[in-house]
Amino acid sequence: MGWELSLLSELAKEIYLAVHPILGTPKAGETLGLGFGGDRTKFIDAISEKAALQYLKEKGVSCIFVGEECGVMEIGSKPEFYLIVDGVDGTNNAVRGLKFASASIAMSPTGMLRDLEAAAVIDLFDGGLYSARRGEGAKYNGKPIRTSNVERLESSIISVDVSRSQESIKRTAQIMGRVKGLRALGSASLEICHVASGILDAYVDLRNMLRTIDFAAGMLIVREAEGIFLQPSGEDIPNVPLTEVRRFSVIASANRKLFDEIVSLISL
Amino acid sequence: MGWELSLLSELAKEIYLAVHPILGTPKAGETLGLGFGGDRTKFIDAISEKAALQYLKEKGVSCIFVGEECGVMEIGSKPEFYLIVDGVDGTNNAVRGLKFASASIAMSPTGMLRDLEAAAVIDLFDGGLYSARRGEGAKYNGKPIRTSNVERLESSIISVDVSRSQESIKRTAQIMGRVKGLRALGSASLEICHVASGILDAYVDLRNMLRTIDFAAGMLIVREAEGIFLQPSGEDIPNVPLTEVRRFSVIASANRKLFDEIVSLISL
Repeated sequence: MGWELSLLSELAKEIYLAVHPILGTPKAGETLGLGFGGDRTKFIDAISEKAALQYLKEKGVSCIFVGEECGVMEIGSKPEFYLIVDGVDGTNNAVRGLKFASASIAMSPTGMLRDLEAAAVIDLFDGGLYSARRGEGAKYNGKPIRTSNVERLESSIISVDVSRSQESIKRTAQIMGRVKGLRALGSASLEICHVASGILDAYVDLRNMLRTIDFAAGMLIVREAEGIFLQPSGEDIPNVPLTEVRRFSVIASANRKLFDEIVSLISL
Repeated sequence: MGWELSLLSELAKEIYLAVHPILGTPKAGETLGLGFGGDRTKFIDAISEKAALQYLKEKGVSCIFVGEECGVMEIGSKPEFYLIVDGVDGTNNAVRGLKFASASIAMSPTGMLRDLEAAAVIDLFDGGLYSARRGEGAKYNGKPIRTSNVERLESSIISVDVSRSQESIKRTAQIMGRVKGLRALGSASLEICHVASGILDAYVDLRNMLRTIDFAAGMLIVREAEGIFLQPSGEDIPNVPLTEVRRFSVIASANRKLFDEIVSLISL
């Protein structure tokens, strides 16, 4: 599968092994300070990133590491690529013990979003591993996955994040009221991977809150699973440097038809 | 723990063993006909109920069985109590492979909702078992549980079901916009049990859609965990016969303060 995916899969498993034992424990939720992305760092976030950094150093990997807590960090003497790592996506779930949280890792040779080469997202509760390499499709635990065939909103199960956004509730009300099943699960990268595997039909977040660190890995995985990942305008995400904190509204969809119906129902 | 809880726990485990192997498979979603409650029966629903009925017959249990698919059925020659059984709560999740679905069982000596004596809810993906006996507290896998101490909506993680209801989106918009984390998970009884264990702080469904078969077991479990389970008006659920299909709006909450804040934010 190429060294890129091997490295990312191994790294994801190291994070899983470090984090899994403290899921749902009071220790996991202890507050430590403010991370690079502005979220409050919890013990579980710190443990996760520490495990990732330690693994890379042990393996003698040299790269530019972009982490939610540590920010941009050079590892080794001759960095050859960029790794963007969200150690815990779904921290609230992980701390409470709600079984939906993930770690996500994406690799870009240039550090630019559109040059992503490989990605891995691991379920921190059960160790299930989503992965993709550019041009080679997406996988779940090593088996190929692709998005669902559901093309109509009224037959779809979709996930919408409207937390803390009255405006977003208004804008998505027509969508939320029309679906067969509405979900909100609390871990964007894992939700996007669920679109990739056909468990969900779409993921919608119009809050202009999601950072590249939150969605880069999921974006490659869902696109490699033949899904759509775009801004609500229909435009691609701009080709931003992964080292900057940039926020976007995004829609992941199983296919173009469903994407178009979702977009047509967004209230201005 | 008394024979009631032993019976319910064993029954829940039998259902789990029958259903778990087909979770997330195409077979699980095959459509068979219309159930007692008006939902379309899927293969997985039928398998679940069949496993429950078979277990009761093998054990020589005589009771009035109220099932989502079979309706009201007398088992054995001298029924001594009522069992209300939802074989799969979260059928869409169970069919898709989204890891949040449950089976729920409640027992009432008289067949009336307010006389519930014992309840069990099992997670069909991982086998985790919530249970309660009236006056004896609630448990998860045999260990006592209780609701969270979160008393303010802005610090809360709550689950709201607004699927297919524009009106309900409007009525809950103030609530959804104010919480720390919003979830929609797709299995009411398991969501209510998550309130019981403190993983969620509240569960809100104002659609007037939830049937007693959907919430009876969860209601006893969350109340035994010192939580609140009421209609949005603040009134108790009426003392209805479990043999009838009756629908209600419900709020499960960790405590009274949080319940009052939620109710105060419902738009008319």
